[in-house]
Amino acid sequence: MVENFYYAYADVLDTGDVERWPDFFTDDAVYRVTGRDNADANLRLGLIYCEGMAMLKDRAFAIAHTEMFAPRYLQHHISNVRMLGIDDAIIRAQANYLLLETVTDEPTRLQQAGRYYDRLRWTGERLLIEERQCVYDTIIIPNCIVYPI
Amino acid sequence: MVENFYYAYADVLDTGDVERWPDFFTDDAVYRVTGRDNADANLRLGLIYCEGMAMLKDRAFAIAHTEMFAPRYLQHHISNVRMLGIDDAIIRAQANYLLLETVTDEPTRLQQAGRYYDRLRWTGERLLIEERQCVYDTIIIPNCIVYPI
Amino acid sequence: MVENFYYAYADVLDTGDVERWPDFFTDDAVYRVTGRDNADANLRLGLIYCEGMAMLKDRAFAIAHTEMFAPRYLQHHISNVRMLGIDDAIIRAQANYLLLETVTDEPTRLQQAGRYYDRLRWTGERLLIEERQCVYDTIIIPNCIVYPI
Repeated sequence: MVENFYYAYADVLDTGDVERWPDFFTDDAVYRVTGRDNADANLRLGLIYCEGMAMLKDRAFAIAHTEMFAPRYLQHHISNVRMLGIDDAIIRAQANYLLLETVTDEPTRLQQAGRYYDRLRWTGERLLIEERQCVYDTIIIPNCIVYPI
Repeated sequence: MVENFYYAYADVLDTGDVERWPDFFTDDAVYRVTGRDNADANLRLGLIYCEGMAMLKDRAFAIAHTEMFAPRYLQHHISNVRMLGIDDAIIRAQANYLLLETVTDEPTRLQQAGRYYDRLRWTGERLLIEERQCVYDTIIIPNCIVYPI
Repeated sequence: MVENFYYAYADVLDTGDVERWPDFFTDDAVYRVTGRDNADANLRLGLIYCEGMAMLKDRAFAIAHTEMFAPRYLQHHISNVRMLGIDDAIIRAQANYLLLETVTDEPTRLQQAGRYYDRLRWTGERLLIEERQCVYDTIIIPNCIVYPI
């Protein structure tokens, strides 16, 4: 079930449907993208930080309606999905991701490798992300990160 | 079950046993390899197109018995396997693939990233591919595609 | 269960906890890292060869306590996990791995692509590796292999 949820999340991003991205989060969700050097040092500073649905929707809207960057295809390859614990309706889970980026007329490149650290909430009907921390190994990232991870 | 089927398919290609590749298809199968730009535009033109077992076998035979290209190792890494629907004996499914290629004495490179869009048929005994569309993000492909994806 | 075992193994290596790596093996385990050219030719010569717990622990200790190489992050992406047979308490299994390496201040690179060929033993409580052969496609490996695969 966790795998399916992750794959559906990736699908929305990879098919360019970024305005549906906030649908995967709870209203009070925290979303953070941080380098592994920072995460290992317990520094909470991140490249991207969203707290709550308004910020998530704002970010998704901004991306969907700006064209400040070259067109590209994305693919999130999710692997090593692990459930680490279940406590009532809360699941702690992690997974590796490989983000591949293809700018038109260039070869596909490894944009970043990283790991999701998640707290998922089961609402009784579906899973939602209560907290997602994306920790990337790739400190030097070719091009800026435009889209959510 | 779908995962196992996909991994067995990849194994046949990755161990160089291409003449067993048609065994994964129905007699009336359609197999197509298309760039994402074409697929998004609903253009059915593809780099590779096979319709029916005779064409599949013909292609497999040609690859197995020609040596017009440098020896190489292949690996298909399949991820994000999703079952999208089941209707009687027909399963619609998709998965991401990462095709890695190692030409002897060169570093391993990302040959292409793409996605399978499949219609699988359950024969009562085993799964077979009724339609497989391989849609690759990597428009610029280092070297031609020799093998099936 | 095999997937979870593989992901836990990868996690220990990827979080830099190499001294826990031997915990995944039986006391009489064999661990071997070999190029695909050698493996295909049934040559047992390998880049790394460990037989028995003492050699595994010795290797893990040496890595944990030397600093002869630049700091780096590793990620093992495990895919295409296949159980090939079960005989009593012995499971034969295989999986693809993609080893990504990020040396500080450099882009993430594909260190090697390869495959695990395993014999796993179920002790009644947990799985352990009785034999692991890591066969890599990437004959030219950027930098030496420092860590276990």
